[in-house]
Amino acid sequence: MKIEGRNAIHELLKTDKEIDKILVQKDLKDDASKRLINIIKSKRVKLQLVDKYVIEKESEGKRSQGFIAFVSDYKYFDLEDIIEDAKEKDGFIVVLNEILDPHNLGSIIRVCECAGVDGIVIGKDRSASVSDTVMRISAGALNHVKVARVVNINTAIEKLKENGYWVYGLEIDGGEIYKTDLKGKLVLVIGGEDSGVKKLTKSKCDGVVKIPMCGKVNSLNASVACGIAVFEALRQRTGK
Amino acid sequence: MKIEGRNAIHELLKTDKEIDKILVQKDLKDDASKRLINIIKSKRVKLQLVDKYVIEKESEGKRSQGFIAFVSDYKYFDLEDIIEDAKEKDGFIVVLNEILDPHNLGSIIRVCECAGVDGIVIGKDRSASVSDTVMRISAGALNHVKVARVVNINTAIEKLKENGYWVYGLEIDGGEIYKTDLKGKLVLVIGGEDSGVKKLTKSKCDGVVKIPMCGKVNSLNASVACGIAVFEALRQRTGK
Repeated sequence: MKIEGRNAIHELLKTDKEIDKILVQKDLKDDASKRLINIIKSKRVKLQLVDKYVIEKESEGKRSQGFIAFVSDYKYFDLEDIIEDAKEKDGFIVVLNEILDPHNLGSIIRVCECAGVDGIVIGKDRSASVSDTVMRISAGALNHVKVARVVNINTAIEKLKENGYWVYGLEIDGGEIYKTDLKGKLVLVIGGEDSGVKKLTKSKCDGVVKIPMCGKVNSLNASVACGIAVFEALRQRTGK
Repeated sequence: MKIEGRNAIHELLKTDKEIDKILVQKDLKDDASKRLINIIKSKRVKLQLVDKYVIEKESEGKRSQGFIAFVSDYKYFDLEDIIEDAKEKDGFIVVLNEILDPHNLGSIIRVCECAGVDGIVIGKDRSASVSDTVMRISAGALNHVKVARVVNINTAIEKLKENGYWVYGLEIDGGEIYKTDLKGKLVLVIGGEDSGVKKLTKSKCDGVVKIPMCGKVNSLNASVACGIAVFEALRQRTGK
């Protein structure tokens, strides 16, 4: 959903709505615009400076005044609710560590839904959020899998451990995923496209697992790697 | 690589070079242009009619005369050579049945390389070919995995069977992939984004396998499904 114009965006910034990004026209010189830009920055919302023709192309009401906000219609779940809902069973939760590409996020949500994952956790910073692109790529899966957005994924991992989950990071220096018991309450941590699972996050994990490969390139796309890992977990968890 | 101008493209069409597509400016009325368009059509090369500004944007030498051909630098392998090279071992070959999206093709090539697949077979018609986009998405994997382009994938499957391969199609109505023995000389047939494995092709397979899912949407992206299947095969084949 798009919200346009200085006043509307000013009001938007007072709510707790999820703002994907705000397009701001380059070279706005008036005081009102400068004030709003400062507020956007102070709220740490993603701000993208663009040429006037981009604003004109994106504007629906033609009353943007150089400001267009993209607001997600998606309502995130609370991690606590995901944990509570899976309390009576062996919950399976996927934590994403800095997945930046919306296509990868959408694709990961899709494959996690197919594997019956109970919830997906993403970070508030340095992560793609659930935008229209993510919704489209997820191909309807977002209606059936819960996504929680947390301030700090390391804290989220601690909370999951307190609730009886075993946490495994997926990384190339881990033990073979096929030789690791992935039954019971399980968290899989999937790293970002280039960065992998970050050092601090890895240190919070109970273990690290890898997908053994036998090619020469041996780098998998994040969503494909996630797919292989969650389906190996599913294979083990359904006793196949 | 781009080749521009009527004469150059006329010569190109006499060779057996792989042409991804030819951009042709709309509304060309002269006889020379009409003749060339007829030749392009008779050779069944993909022709895309575009506005003049697209030609001007794409043209490098500014001597296109309204015609720009995109030629793949990729040199396909022969299926016979792939079979020959894998003769002494349990070869593993992936056949793609109408994968149309270059991103999916690139992603499939990447994951197949990581799984140590000996060769990939694509059809000449109704399939993405190895374009620059495919090369980019494959992230270098194309240098290490052999891709063969064949006139008819059903004939290719017959040939693989004659050479001792067991052929499994990946489809939702198959037996569970985890309960199927994927060792030995193996061909996996992966279906297109929407169409899946076609009926005739399926009838050529020795068996059909599925990835058991437990979500509500249960439709996987072609490259993710391919990744899960080839890595399940690799798991079995390496005795894990």
